[in-house]
Amino acid sequence: MQLVFDDSYFMRKALEEAEYAFEKGEIPVGVVVVIDQQIIARGHNLTELLNDVTAHAEMQAITAAANFLGGKYLKGCTMYVTLEPCQMCAGALYWSQISNLVFAATDPDRGYRKMGTRLHPKTKVTSGIMENEASALLKRFFIEKRNLN
Amino acid sequence: MQLVFDDSYFMRKALEEAEYAFEKGEIPVGVVVVIDQQIIARGHNLTELLNDVTAHAEMQAITAAANFLGGKYLKGCTMYVTLEPCQMCAGALYWSQISNLVFAATDPDRGYRKMGTRLHPKTKVTSGIMENEASALLKRFFIEKRNLN
Repeated sequence: MQLVFDDSYFMRKALEEAEYAFEKGEIPVGVVVVIDQQIIARGHNLTELLNDVTAHAEMQAITAAANFLGGKYLKGCTMYVTLEPCQMCAGALYWSQISNLVFAATDPDRGYRKMGTRLHPKTKVTSGIMENEASALLKRFFIEKRNLN
Repeated sequence: MQLVFDDSYFMRKALEEAEYAFEKGEIPVGVVVVIDQQIIARGHNLTELLNDVTAHAEMQAITAAANFLGGKYLKGCTMYVTLEPCQMCAGALYWSQISNLVFAATDPDRGYRKMGTRLHPKTKVTSGIMENEASALLKRFFIEKRNLN
């Protein structure tokens, strides 16, 4: 039997991270960074707990992945993230020269595509992997938050 | 006698930070964040030393200023930075809702204006303060770097 590590497998790991964020009262966004079928960084949104707008899941994972690799460029890496990155995170991915970006749910308001943020020319983008699961988690978060306020 | 704390005063402090970066072999960009005439955060580019593309001066200062204030929004704050911010840093400033951004040198290639990055609607922008000094420092860095390689 061969284990299949496909985009859905890794996006499921990113969704687990998003669930950790949810449990902490954070907007549920999670990420993993993968190289050669190995997860080298994980992260979830911590902007509220850390009181820091820069503490998006992707930013933490970029720093962690570079730390693991011992170099600041993420060539050969794939980022799996449950929500389309914002301007800041896409701008960080631009500098990282990451090879692949895979995201689940789209962000029609503040996503990098709507905002016109440029990724690195070498970065290939795949979207929609486990989109329904990621969107459902985000919707559940905002419904619960609305009901609490 | 009254001490004058004007834009040039604070930009000079940002330039001091840029010089620290220069001495460490980093692209010389420096920043201070000010509220009520008080510097609450300083930073300089550390991408090489930290092996981290997210370690721009602005990102560190946004985190430090929020830490000082005990909240993630930088309302009432002014960031003085010696180079026009990139997409990532402008994207972080967007989330921070900072009141004022003052930068010295422009970055016609990778600056946020060329890239079309959106700042928060409440953020007022001033540019060109001590532009010559900031540009001269950057030029000196790249000339020295070229001669070393």
